[in-house]
Amino acid sequence: MNTPASQLETELHEVLLAIKHPEIQTRTLGELGVLQSIQVKENIVRVTLALPLQQTPVKETLITLVKQAVQGTAPQLQVDIAITRMTPEQRAVFMAAARGDTRPAGGIKNVACVIAVMSGKGGVGKSAVAGILATFLQRRGLRTGVLDADITGPSIPKIFGANDTPESGPDGVLLPVVSSTGIKIMSVNLLLPAQDQAVIWRGPLISRAIEQFWNDIAWGDLDYLVVDLPPGTSDAALTVTQSLPLHGVILVTSPQDLAGMVVRKAADLVCKMEIPVIGIVENMSHLVCPHCGTTVSVFGPSCADETARRIGSPLLGHLPIDPNLAIRCDAGEIEDYRSDVFETIVDKVIENLALAAEP
Amino acid sequence: MNTPASQLETELHEVLLAIKHPEIQTRTLGELGVLQSIQVKENIVRVTLALPLQQTPVKETLITLVKQAVQGTAPQLQVDIAITRMTPEQRAVFMAAARGDTRPAGGIKNVACVIAVMSGKGGVGKSAVAGILATFLQRRGLRTGVLDADITGPSIPKIFGANDTPESGPDGVLLPVVSSTGIKIMSVNLLLPAQDQAVIWRGPLISRAIEQFWNDIAWGDLDYLVVDLPPGTSDAALTVTQSLPLHGVILVTSPQDLAGMVVRKAADLVCKMEIPVIGIVENMSHLVCPHCGTTVSVFGPSCADETARRIGSPLLGHLPIDPNLAIRCDAGEIEDYRSDVFETIVDKVIENLALAAEP
Repeated sequence: MNTPASQLETELHEVLLAIKHPEIQTRTLGELGVLQSIQVKENIVRVTLALPLQQTPVKETLITLVKQAVQGTAPQLQVDIAITRMTPEQRAVFMAAARGDTRPAGGIKNVACVIAVMSGKGGVGKSAVAGILATFLQRRGLRTGVLDADITGPSIPKIFGANDTPESGPDGVLLPVVSSTGIKIMSVNLLLPAQDQAVIWRGPLISRAIEQFWNDIAWGDLDYLVVDLPPGTSDAALTVTQSLPLHGVILVTSPQDLAGMVVRKAADLVCKMEIPVIGIVENMSHLVCPHCGTTVSVFGPSCADETARRIGSPLLGHLPIDPNLAIRCDAGEIEDYRSDVFETIVDKVIENLALAAEP
Repeated sequence: MNTPASQLETELHEVLLAIKHPEIQTRTLGELGVLQSIQVKENIVRVTLALPLQQTPVKETLITLVKQAVQGTAPQLQVDIAITRMTPEQRAVFMAAARGDTRPAGGIKNVACVIAVMSGKGGVGKSAVAGILATFLQRRGLRTGVLDADITGPSIPKIFGANDTPESGPDGVLLPVVSSTGIKIMSVNLLLPAQDQAVIWRGPLISRAIEQFWNDIAWGDLDYLVVDLPPGTSDAALTVTQSLPLHGVILVTSPQDLAGMVVRKAADLVCKMEIPVIGIVENMSHLVCPHCGTTVSVFGPSCADETARRIGSPLLGHLPIDPNLAIRCDAGEIEDYRSDVFETIVDKVIENLALAAEP
């Protein structure tokens, strides 16, 4: 008969739920979603804790606190603690609770999958890759949005030809702008009086803007939200990887070894945040001369295979330089762009995301 | 006989020097170098104040404080206040005093001219332009240094083939690394254990690193210091334009209208900081096919003339895409690079800097 164990379980459960988080003193393990399960079997209490990152420095302190709490309630029992990593959704709840954000998650959005396009290096075509990815997903009937997390150098509205000012919804919440094929878009450039006005903000404001683009925009129901990141591994990259429930990251590189080095820095950040790398796209791989048809290695020989090998992630494909893409982007017509190479890349992205989601 | 006026001048001078700055309460106008001159002639006190930026929001408060101080000492006199803009050197003293940095300016360096290479946009070749500019200046017998202000995506050590760890000088101050042709270099990548390790820092740390690269490195005597900026108009760009005594900025763009839009954001920042734009360089302008010799507009038709016109600054030149440059950069041999187009650009940079320095 296991009623005593169950009673003890209930009692211990309440004690552990009420433990204050050692770093976020205003929140309990219950509020943060850290306590996953508790089970008393024979003389052993098995506790499972979920952490946003497995390498979190408070792990040991947390284990000690939980052990002490169990022993204070049931000194006769042994304690066995297992640590698991939070899912992106659990991490979002954790971050929201840590920030003191009590709005129910998903109230103004229901986003199935969040993908960040990142590079570390500038000008390798992150925004073009993000824009084409969103375009091709939407074309396949998947409801897609693009969150432009490049606050000081936003390109997304221009390449989609989006000029409207975001409107307020019924609750006063901002609605994303909708592109000609139905892609939902939010970018700081949609909120500026002039497109070429500088956003001269230091890091904390950049981070707050990105968090608001995620939390306070009525994204509605989406199958995919593509996040376009700026170069670098500072505030924007940190905020997106820490505060958004990312399912994976696509890294964009160019053939130069120099680009590879900086992209490996971005991979280092993504790895430290324990977010899956869906794969690597080499952009501007080569040019086929429109006059004579020769393949020209415009930016030197490719180092993308070596970069992918060192990062330990699959190379999704090599995209050639296509002068037509530059023209389409400048004209705001990225949604008219077609590319067989990119169709294959989208297949692999969807497949690798499914693999990454498996426990 | 003007002795009474002179005595009054001395007295007023001391009163005004001791006024506390309305924003930087721990510093007086004397310590910050704001009070430029005072002259009493007939019934009028003429005061000249120098401000780091002409549009500074405290201007009106300062004028009121100075008027009140004069009238408290010599109520019979009229006050006439003129405002001038600080020189780059005066601005550096102001910023150092505002930070509480009491080390004498120029103690470990004597830099005649500081140029920032900036873009707003990533991947347009800022680091290559900065590296070639430094190489060509040094080749002309000018003592040159490069400060890599791109903390999260540093490229400078790689393109110069610089791998040494900076050594400490006699005072424990770090010495820059010296390239094969004698260019002095400082970059965060020279301080990391591995080149592909990410620097995951938020804005304030980025800013402090850049300030230390300027203040705490024994640059010694230099004719030119070239500062390579990361993309964006956030912390790094703000710190370089506010804390370094810049003589001018070179903006780098690429043919795409999209790049032009983001570069205009950088120009907007530079304009707001009242720093002269030396000129604009269009990089990756076109490619001459090595097989058939046709000129290919790889990134679409050029919008650089239009960008230069809208910014109101001279276009210094169009640099073609040169696969040899990418190879030289990856091999750390940028100092072997030759380009007639760039020689002309360097001529114009030196000439325009001289023009900008004229009062």
